[in-house]
Amino acid sequence: MSYQKYIEHCQKIADINYSNALLQWDQEVNMPEKGAEARSRQIATLSVIAHEWSTDKNFGALLEELSLDSNLTWEQKRNVELSLKDYQKQLKYNSEFVQKLSATISKAFNAWQAARKSNNFEIFAPALEEIVALKREEAKLLGYKDHPYNALMDEYEPGATVEMVDTLFKGVKSSLLVLLDKVNKSTAPTNLFAGKVYEASQQWKITEEFLQKMGYDFSAGRQDYAPHPFCTNFNAQDVRVTTRANEYDLFDMLSSSIHEGGHALYEQGLKMSNYGLPAGSYISLGIHESQSRLWENNVGRSRAFWNNNFSIVQQYFPQQCAGVSENDAFVANNIIQPSLIRVQADELTYHFHIMIRYELEKRLIEGSLEVKDLKNTWNDMYKQYLGVDVPSDNEGVLQDIHWAHGSLGYFATYSLGSFYAAQFYNQAQKEISDDLEEQIQKGNLIVLKNWLNQNIHQYGRLYGAEEICQKVTGEKLNFEYFHQYLENKLKTIYNWK
Amino acid sequence: MSYQKYIEHCQKIADINYSNALLQWDQEVNMPEKGAEARSRQIATLSVIAHEWSTDKNFGALLEELSLDSNLTWEQKRNVELSLKDYQKQLKYNSEFVQKLSATISKAFNAWQAARKSNNFEIFAPALEEIVALKREEAKLLGYKDHPYNALMDEYEPGATVEMVDTLFKGVKSSLLVLLDKVNKSTAPTNLFAGKVYEASQQWKITEEFLQKMGYDFSAGRQDYAPHPFCTNFNAQDVRVTTRANEYDLFDMLSSSIHEGGHALYEQGLKMSNYGLPAGSYISLGIHESQSRLWENNVGRSRAFWNNNFSIVQQYFPQQCAGVSENDAFVANNIIQPSLIRVQADELTYHFHIMIRYELEKRLIEGSLEVKDLKNTWNDMYKQYLGVDVPSDNEGVLQDIHWAHGSLGYFATYSLGSFYAAQFYNQAQKEISDDLEEQIQKGNLIVLKNWLNQNIHQYGRLYGAEEICQKVTGEKLNFEYFHQYLENKLKTIYNWK
Repeated sequence: MSYQKYIEHCQKIADINYSNALLQWDQEVNMPEKGAEARSRQIATLSVIAHEWSTDKNFGALLEELSLDSNLTWEQKRNVELSLKDYQKQLKYNSEFVQKLSATISKAFNAWQAARKSNNFEIFAPALEEIVALKREEAKLLGYKDHPYNALMDEYEPGATVEMVDTLFKGVKSSLLVLLDKVNKSTAPTNLFAGKVYEASQQWKITEEFLQKMGYDFSAGRQDYAPHPFCTNFNAQDVRVTTRANEYDLFDMLSSSIHEGGHALYEQGLKMSNYGLPAGSYISLGIHESQSRLWENNVGRSRAFWNNNFSIVQQYFPQQCAGVSENDAFVANNIIQPSLIRVQADELTYHFHIMIRYELEKRLIEGSLEVKDLKNTWNDMYKQYLGVDVPSDNEGVLQDIHWAHGSLGYFATYSLGSFYAAQFYNQAQKEISDDLEEQIQKGNLIVLKNWLNQNIHQYGRLYGAEEICQKVTGEKLNFEYFHQYLENKLKTIYNWK
Repeated sequence: MSYQKYIEHCQKIADINYSNALLQWDQEVNMPEKGAEARSRQIATLSVIAHEWSTDKNFGALLEELSLDSNLTWEQKRNVELSLKDYQKQLKYNSEFVQKLSATISKAFNAWQAARKSNNFEIFAPALEEIVALKREEAKLLGYKDHPYNALMDEYEPGATVEMVDTLFKGVKSSLLVLLDKVNKSTAPTNLFAGKVYEASQQWKITEEFLQKMGYDFSAGRQDYAPHPFCTNFNAQDVRVTTRANEYDLFDMLSSSIHEGGHALYEQGLKMSNYGLPAGSYISLGIHESQSRLWENNVGRSRAFWNNNFSIVQQYFPQQCAGVSENDAFVANNIIQPSLIRVQADELTYHFHIMIRYELEKRLIEGSLEVKDLKNTWNDMYKQYLGVDVPSDNEGVLQDIHWAHGSLGYFATYSLGSFYAAQFYNQAQKEISDDLEEQIQKGNLIVLKNWLNQNIHQYGRLYGAEEICQKVTGEKLNFEYFHQYLENKLKTIYNWK
């Protein structure tokens, strides 16, 4: 009876949050420009309701009561435990702080857009200073052990700590520098797909075929164009992805659709019967990202994938593909080239972009770096890590939206996602009885989707990130899987011994 | 201070209602089929919040207080007066009744769909009986003078009564029967556009040009495909229309886009500063419909319109338009032909469809007709009014969604809309200094949009339907304007003396 009341309250909160997600999806995909003013107040009103219901005293009392109820099943207990944790966390935010943060983020977002227009970090810096100050305050409100940045990371990756990430990244940095050094000393292969034009509507059709093959259920989702690719959902049976076209780069839209499709398979793999409950939600951003990157990289940049799918590309772009082979497609997807922009980075150098941001954020929050020195430190680190000179603020410190959105503590999850992906993929290879690569080569991607559904998706938050990793792979997150995977691939691309 | 609090509460209710409108728009336009289950609960949750906030006791007290405040301006007073009336009406609905009605409507809608599939009214009849019983109960809850159907009509057309509509329709029926008789005795002109195929994407482009010319602001709205054309809005700066394609009928999509565009101009013409207030909302369905029909019929089926716009159609359909003239387009848009389906009816016989439904609903509610006799009575009336035999339930009593949605009391507003439209149009012709038809012939539709903005749209609900009619035209609703308008047009189509 109490548990039923608990479910109903959770579902009502979910109704509000998912309605809000639709307002936001529509804003990116469909909304006419003049609709923005009223839309932002509608989003704010729904957010306030969700916050009020999430911190409702009666709900809190119900959770306390249920947490002592010995008749609950393991799954019910786990739901209650997580909801109680969420509840206690929400209580730490007083409404004054929430309003100040929300107003500051609005201001910062506008300042960031203005700074981008003028390609001038100075325009954004004052607002960013306010954001950083508020994020330090947030860390205090939330409380933390050892390092204030832990409180912020915990928002996105529950359980992640500076200690853990520092240790991890130290190994990552040294291993990847070795690989990068080898790449730099090798002869770079040529991207034979460059310098041609690929019509967007044809690219779109390829992405639809790819999504179908991955097992993305179009009767429980849809793909649209949006300025920034993303995946959102309004329940497990309505999970939408967006993509964007670059007619000068064949693989930009394709890989972004596969990436978002990977996110979408996770959401479609949650159980509808757990709507609104912790068991019906994703574990963490790192695990979410592991699903997108597993599909984008481990699958979508593999030789087996291109052996199977190059013919589809050929079919839509017969002229552009004249004289190029499936191997050329595989190679073009795996060329390593240090560059300035994170979202265009290859699988290796990507993690340097992340480590730079992680380091900078951590130092901003602990107070060992000031916003006024951020730009120069950014540029110095790009030189040091990637050997590139940053020619402008837009290609440097202004490139990401995260800080303007107040999302500090987020970046590390991208790298964690890649590393989890490699580890999960390795395990899937072991467990899928018919050789996985052979299946991919035959176009049978469903076998992998089913394995992920079975081993990861169906549980929602019932297991934490570290727990699910242990449960699925028998060990903690281990960077070596990624390292091995990447080294093996680069060997064939760069003809290393 | 109190008035400011009042505004804020109204705006918050509007945030919820407009968010709900987006959930519904998305359901019709974008939602994947499996999304329906969770969507309906999300809509229900937002509806409950809106109802709770609308009947909040503190809000009621605030309204009472403000209604005695002598410092308010005329417009503020009027807002408060309308809000108080809305509040008092909402209070009459107890939540038990609301839930029962909502559950019955769900059931009735499913039954109606099933009945449509089997083309069998018997499948829908039991659910319709429940709907009728609840609507009788609703009339009692709301209270009424003279006739229970007055309470239901008041939902859609505040102030409309059986007495007024009966009197009106008596005159309408006799006048239109005379016209129909003359039509039946005349030689029917030929629709030279029939029997050809018109590609949907080309039709779409024509509708975009038409909407642009009408002054529909695409930066504050958009057009999409949906199974049933409709107009919805999320504020005055985000007003969306939908349309549908019939490749065998050139004028189906064009006139439906113009129609919805007319609705949209009304909503875009409301003041953003009145967001959430009565002054920021439309007067009644009859007045809303007057705007859509004025554009669809008085403008969109006029000779002047086709003289100006036929070249656009020719440009998109050069082959299909070979050998046909702008006069042929004018004629094809105005052929009178008694038929079975309301939404496909011409400007004359349309009102017989409405009068039949109005009569049937009124009798169902007063208890002089039972659902079991509805189908036969329907068929008898179609024979009597329009001289047509109803060959199947789908082409008869099952054709409209309204009863399945519990919308009894609605239909008369369609005819009222046409009559208001003719009266407003007549006034616009008098007041627009450069001859209106000449302007339309030159493609200057903005002059009419501006006149409607100025005289009708900007006021929202500050004036009631009868008041705005009196204010704009100097007299009450007068069917003679429509009668004259139609007779004059038919004279030229049918070559009457």
